[in-house]
Amino acid sequence: MRFLRICFFSLFAVLSSSAYALTDAQMFEVMRFMAEKPKPDVTVNGIGIYVYDGINSLDALGPYRVFMTAGLKPFLIAKNRGTITTNDNLKIQVDKSIADVTKLDILVIPGGAAETVAQTKDPVTLAWIQQIDANSLYTTSVCTGSWILGAAGLLQGKNATSNWYRAKQILAKYGATFQPKRWVQDGKYWTSAGVSAGIDMALAIVVNLYSHDYAQAVMLDLEYDPQPPIRGGSLAKTALVPRRNMTWMYDFYLLDSFVRSK
Amino acid sequence: MRFLRICFFSLFAVLSSSAYALTDAQMFEVMRFMAEKPKPDVTVNGIGIYVYDGINSLDALGPYRVFMTAGLKPFLIAKNRGTITTNDNLKIQVDKSIADVTKLDILVIPGGAAETVAQTKDPVTLAWIQQIDANSLYTTSVCTGSWILGAAGLLQGKNATSNWYRAKQILAKYGATFQPKRWVQDGKYWTSAGVSAGIDMALAIVVNLYSHDYAQAVMLDLEYDPQPPIRGGSLAKTALVPRRNMTWMYDFYLLDSFVRSK
Repeated sequence: MRFLRICFFSLFAVLSSSAYALTDAQMFEVMRFMAEKPKPDVTVNGIGIYVYDGINSLDALGPYRVFMTAGLKPFLIAKNRGTITTNDNLKIQVDKSIADVTKLDILVIPGGAAETVAQTKDPVTLAWIQQIDANSLYTTSVCTGSWILGAAGLLQGKNATSNWYRAKQILAKYGATFQPKRWVQDGKYWTSAGVSAGIDMALAIVVNLYSHDYAQAVMLDLEYDPQPPIRGGSLAKTALVPRRNMTWMYDFYLLDSFVRSK
Repeated sequence: MRFLRICFFSLFAVLSSSAYALTDAQMFEVMRFMAEKPKPDVTVNGIGIYVYDGINSLDALGPYRVFMTAGLKPFLIAKNRGTITTNDNLKIQVDKSIADVTKLDILVIPGGAAETVAQTKDPVTLAWIQQIDANSLYTTSVCTGSWILGAAGLLQGKNATSNWYRAKQILAKYGATFQPKRWVQDGKYWTSAGVSAGIDMALAIVVNLYSHDYAQAVMLDLEYDPQPPIRGGSLAKTALVPRRNMTWMYDFYLLDSFVRSK
């Protein structure tokens, strides 16, 4: 809401005489309410979401929207400036490269599938993540983004979660202990379960940074009162047939080439 | 999952001898499972998401991700081809213009704030929506996108929902009856509540189109088992102070210029 707050102040100067929608007392309360600052102040070095070709769009853009709604102005960062293409064929312009960004308060690493495996083997990416982590206040991942944090050596000895697919086995490769939760905090390391879980994790960080009232305002702006139309969304809540077919599908691509590889 | 299925088939041809991750029986079951077709077949004219400068990114990209996960290959459509900028500063490339698209099986209209009000007054946009609606199987909106459907005359006499902000009052302007639900179906018209509710509505449409097992596979792929970190996300679940401040903030911008206007 910081963005709206800025608009609000400038509009206030221009329109205050004509803004009969609000009384002076209401106006004063709204301005005070919106002025709340995050603690710690994660706007010093900001919130960066690392993106790459083949990310799952919602892994990145769910947390992006949550942090933006809180007024925290997150930004996307890619290896090089330009356009990235998500695994669902969105083409998104990225204005910052890893060379442009040396410090972040919050780092978010989204996931994907084959291209995420490739990131776990990219020494330039991993070195940049280690550099950012050296000064970050929160180092986080969504979905299979935990594979990249793990490959960067940052989950060694930590509790973590990940996308549902063979999470215990894959996190163990990186010395992490899987906790079957929607998101897991271990010190400054926050990891979330698959795709949509990044929204919950980002909101949990907002709750961590702000008053309960402010966090509720963010949730109302997102109207975040989810109601899945049917039971599902986790291994435990999914019937045998879809569960095993989805596991086999990912096994086909990833079991030998990634999960069982060293 | 249709995209993965296509990859799967082509990889199968190349790799079947080396794909020792799966047995033949598993492979056969996975291929059969993924081959399920939507009923009705919404891939004939496809799923189009109408976007414009100033949309709330998640309004559009939540349903986009859900439909993509189901294998339905939705696409973005803007008034003109090129780059749109969301109200949260994402720059997204759009490859189809309204001149390129004359029929859709599913139309999705996302919301925003001031720029959404502008869309309600744009005769070219409204005429295109009416044209698409003449042949659509589902005409839908997310959040304040209902204002645009309303302005196009499509919600007259219908039950509908919308973003929480003065929903009853605004829908009444368009002859619609507000139902305080996460999503509302009235014939082929589906409307959802604010921002994140578009994910629930899109999943409800997936449940409508596919078997329960297939819909559960989509939900597992999204790991959609949401857990908001605190209570909130609707007017009823939000404390007085954040509720009234958020209402006043939107009143400041919209009450006189839009809500009370004819």
